[in-house]
Amino acid sequence: MGNILMNMAQEQLGSANLEAKGVRGLLKSFLGKIIQWIAMTYFPIGAKNRCRLERLRGVKIGKHVFIGGGNVLDRVRPDLITIEDYVSLAGGVKILTHSNPTTPLREILGEEYHTLAPVHIKKGAWIALNVVILPGVTIGENSIVATNSVVMKDVPSFTIVGGTPAKVLREIPNSPKKDGIKIKE
Amino acid sequence: MGNILMNMAQEQLGSANLEAKGVRGLLKSFLGKIIQWIAMTYFPIGAKNRCRLERLRGVKIGKHVFIGGGNVLDRVRPDLITIEDYVSLAGGVKILTHSNPTTPLREILGEEYHTLAPVHIKKGAWIALNVVILPGVTIGENSIVATNSVVMKDVPSFTIVGGTPAKVLREIPNSPKKDGIKIKE
Amino acid sequence: MGNILMNMAQEQLGSANLEAKGVRGLLKSFLGKIIQWIAMTYFPIGAKNRCRLERLRGVKIGKHVFIGGGNVLDRVRPDLITIEDYVSLAGGVKILTHSNPTTPLREILGEEYHTLAPVHIKKGAWIALNVVILPGVTIGENSIVATNSVVMKDVPSFTIVGGTPAKVLREIPNSPKKDGIKIKE
Repeated sequence: MGNILMNMAQEQLGSANLEAKGVRGLLKSFLGKIIQWIAMTYFPIGAKNRCRLERLRGVKIGKHVFIGGGNVLDRVRPDLITIEDYVSLAGGVKILTHSNPTTPLREILGEEYHTLAPVHIKKGAWIALNVVILPGVTIGENSIVATNSVVMKDVPSFTIVGGTPAKVLREIPNSPKKDGIKIKE
Repeated sequence: MGNILMNMAQEQLGSANLEAKGVRGLLKSFLGKIIQWIAMTYFPIGAKNRCRLERLRGVKIGKHVFIGGGNVLDRVRPDLITIEDYVSLAGGVKILTHSNPTTPLREILGEEYHTLAPVHIKKGAWIALNVVILPGVTIGENSIVATNSVVMKDVPSFTIVGGTPAKVLREIPNSPKKDGIKIKE
Repeated sequence: MGNILMNMAQEQLGSANLEAKGVRGLLKSFLGKIIQWIAMTYFPIGAKNRCRLERLRGVKIGKHVFIGGGNVLDRVRPDLITIEDYVSLAGGVKILTHSNPTTPLREILGEEYHTLAPVHIKKGAWIALNVVILPGVTIGENSIVATNSVVMKDVPSFTIVGGTPAKVLREIPNSPKKDGIKIKE
C-alpha cells in the first residue's frame, strides 16, 4: 500500500510538472483518485452522486447537471474544469485539462504540446457519448457536441458541432441568441 | 443506501420520461444496473455470462452471441434492444435506445432529439471495437461495422460500414444475398 | 466458479483458435484476465504498477513507459505486443493483436479478417486518448497518434497521424531523423 502510494506520488509529480505537494496533498490526491474511480466506472450510483463525488475532487459543477457513467474528468487537474447549470455529459465523456508528451518528444518539441489549461462548459450544453474535450476549450451555452467528437477549439453558443476535430455542423434553429433562454424551474 | 436508491429513482424517472414505476420497478431497475455494471466493466466473466446477465436486464439475445468487455447496452431501456444469433459485439460497444437533451435544449428544440426507439442487430453481424449505435437503427445480416464508427442510419445486409456517421464502405464479396447463409451447427 | 472457469475456457479456445491448452494454461489465462481487469479499470494503482501487471500478462514493456487508465492491451494474445522505452499510452487506448469475425462471416470471407499479428510501438511514441491500434501495426519512434484515431497501417518515425483510419497529418519539425534522439537519463 505504501508502495502504491509512493507510485501515485511519482506519477502525480512526474506526469504534469505540478507544484510540489506535501503528504496532505498526496493523500488528498489519492483519495481524489479513488473518488474519481467510483464516479466514473459506470457503477450505478446515479448522476447526482456522480456530481457530488466530482465536486469533492475539485470540479466546479452547477445545478441540475447530469453526469452519466464512464466519464473521465481530468485526473491530474480536475480543479480547472467548470461545468455550468443544466449541462449534460452523456457517458464515456473525457475532459482533459493537461497534455503531457513523452520525454523524448518534449526534448524535440519543447513545450509545444505540454499544456495545462482550463475547460469551461456553459449552461445547457449537451455533450454526447464518448466525446473528448481537450485543454483550453470553452463550450458555449445550449450547444450540442455530437457523439464521438474530439473538441479542440472553442464552440460558439447555440451550435451543433461534430467530428475529429469537431467542426460546426449547423446552428440550432430559432436560437434566442439575444435574450438568452429562460428555464422554468 | 436509501439515499442512493432515491437518486436512482429520480434519475430513472427524470432522464427518459418513462412510465411511472412502483417500488418493484425501482428495485428491478437498481438490480438491473448492478447486473449491467458487472456485465460491462471488463470483469472477466466470459462472453456467455455477459449474455446471461444482459438477458436478465431485458435485452433480447439469440444463440452463439459474443459480447466482449466494456459494452454498454442502453441503461434506461435495454428491453428495446434485439440481438440475433451469431452476432459479435467486440468490446467497448455502446448501444443506445434513448436520447435525452438537456432541459434548455428541450425547450428550444421541442422533442426533436428526445427519442426512444428500438435497435435491432441481425444474424451474424460483426460490431467492431468502440462502435456506437444510436436509437432506431437496424443492422442487416452478416454486415460489418468498422471500429470507432457511429451508426445513425440502418445498415443493409452484407455490407461494411464505417466512419462518423457510418457510411457504406463496400459490399461483402460473394454475398449469398438471395439464399441467405447456412451455418453448420 | 467452476462454471465461469469453463466458460472462460470455451471463450478462450473458441474465440481465437488458439493452440490447445491444459488446465495450467486456463488458470494462467484466468489469472491473466484478472490482472488485466485491475490494470485497466482506471483503478488508481499508478502507471508503474500498470506496467508491472501488464508484464505479468506477457506484454513486453520497456523502461519509463507510462500506461494511463482504461487501456486494453489485447486480452487474447498480449504476448504479441511490444512497447519500447519512453512510450506513453494516455488512457482508453486499445491495442489488438487478434481479429475474429462472426461464424457466418468466416464462412463467407474465409480467413480474410481472421488474423493474429504482433503490434510494435517504438521508443518515445505518444499514443493519445482513446486510440485503437489494430493487429500487425508498427508505430515508429517519437511519433504521435492523435486522440480517437484508429491505426490500421504502420506509422513512420517522427510523424503525427490522426483520424479513422489514421493518416499522416504532418512531420514533427526539426526531427533529428539521422542521428536518433538522445535522452538525458
